[in-house]
Amino acid sequence: MKRNGILFIISAPSGSGKTTLCNKLVHSLTGLSRSISMTTRPPRNGERDGTDYIFIEKEEFIKRQKKNEFLESAKVFGEYYGTPKRYVKHLLKKGQDVLLSIDVQGAMKIKKLKAKSVYIFILPQSMSQLRERLMHRSTDSKKEIAKRLSIAKKELSYLPRYDYVVINNILESALENLRSIVIAERCRML
Amino acid sequence: MKRNGILFIISAPSGSGKTTLCNKLVHSLTGLSRSISMTTRPPRNGERDGTDYIFIEKEEFIKRQKKNEFLESAKVFGEYYGTPKRYVKHLLKKGQDVLLSIDVQGAMKIKKLKAKSVYIFILPQSMSQLRERLMHRSTDSKKEIAKRLSIAKKELSYLPRYDYVVINNILESALENLRSIVIAERCRML
Repeated sequence: MKRNGILFIISAPSGSGKTTLCNKLVHSLTGLSRSISMTTRPPRNGERDGTDYIFIEKEEFIKRQKKNEFLESAKVFGEYYGTPKRYVKHLLKKGQDVLLSIDVQGAMKIKKLKAKSVYIFILPQSMSQLRERLMHRSTDSKKEIAKRLSIAKKELSYLPRYDYVVINNILESALENLRSIVIAERCRML
Repeated sequence: MKRNGILFIISAPSGSGKTTLCNKLVHSLTGLSRSISMTTRPPRNGERDGTDYIFIEKEEFIKRQKKNEFLESAKVFGEYYGTPKRYVKHLLKKGQDVLLSIDVQGAMKIKKLKAKSVYIFILPQSMSQLRERLMHRSTDSKKEIAKRLSIAKKELSYLPRYDYVVINNILESALENLRSIVIAERCRML
C-alpha cells in the first residue's frame, strides 16, 4: 500500500536563510521534492528560471490565477507569487513528499486544504541578526531593508499557527532539525 | 527560560530489538536520559542491577506500590515492573528529556498523567522476524516463546494510540528514525 506524500510548508522572515536551508534539505533526503513557485518579480543574481522560480509576466500570472491553477497565491512587495497546483498534487499522489517554501500569507491559505501538511517556521537567532543578514544581501536598498524588517515583525505573529520552529543559528544544526522533522513526520501514526 | 523535559515512551513486542535501540538512542543524543525501571523478575544474562533494571524482591515492590512511588507499574508474565516517580520527575524538572521503555499496559497508564509525553511503538519487520528473534534469545523456553508471541499480537492492538511507529528493519535506519523523533519533538511548537 502506497502512502500519499506529505506537504511540508516552510515560512520564514526574509533574511532568515530559508533558501539555503531548503536547498540543502532537499538534497540531503530522498523522497522529498521542492515545489517551484511562479512569480512576477524579477530574478535576483544567480537565480535560474525553472529551478529557483518560474518567472512569468503579470498578465500571464493573473490569467492562471483566474483559471484556479494555484494552490495558493499572494501579492508580496507588489509582486505575485503562486504555487502551481497540478505539479504538487501529482508529486503527492506518487507518494513523494513536497517542500513548499512560502510566506505566511500563502501558508495560511493552504491550511484550508485537505492535504496532510506540516508547518515549519524558521527563525533567525535574533532581530539584530535578521537586520544584519538583510544588510549583507546586496540586492536590497536601505528602504527595502526597513520594509522587510517591519514585515518580518508582522509575520512573527503567525508563529503559533505553525507545528515546528527551527532557529537558524548554526546552519548544520538547523539543517539537522529540519531533516529530523521530515523523518519524524514520516514515522507519525496516521 | 528553561523548558521542562519531554517524556518519550517507547513500547514494543518483546523480541523487537527495543533494548538495543534504546541504549543506542540515549548514547547518541545529549539531554536524553533513560529512566531505570524496578522489577521483580530475575536478571537475564549480562543485565546489571542499577543500569538495566533495579532488581528488587516482590515484597519490597508491593510496599513501594502502596506508598504510590511508581509513575506506573504493571504485572507482566507474573513479574512486577514499575517506573520510580521521583527520579523521572526530577529529570523532567531539570529540563532533561526522559526515555521510558515500557510495555503497552504501563504506557497507557502514563497517558493519564499531565506531563508532555510522546508515544513511540517499535515494530519488527514481520511476525516471522519476531518469532525468529525470540527463538535466538537463548533465555526463553519454547513455551515462553509461544506465550510472548501471543502477547505480542495483543499488544499490537494498542498501536493506534501511539504517536509514532518505527519499524526495526535495519538497525541504523531505525535508530535514525528514533533520533529524528526526539529532535523534531524538541522543535515542536508548544
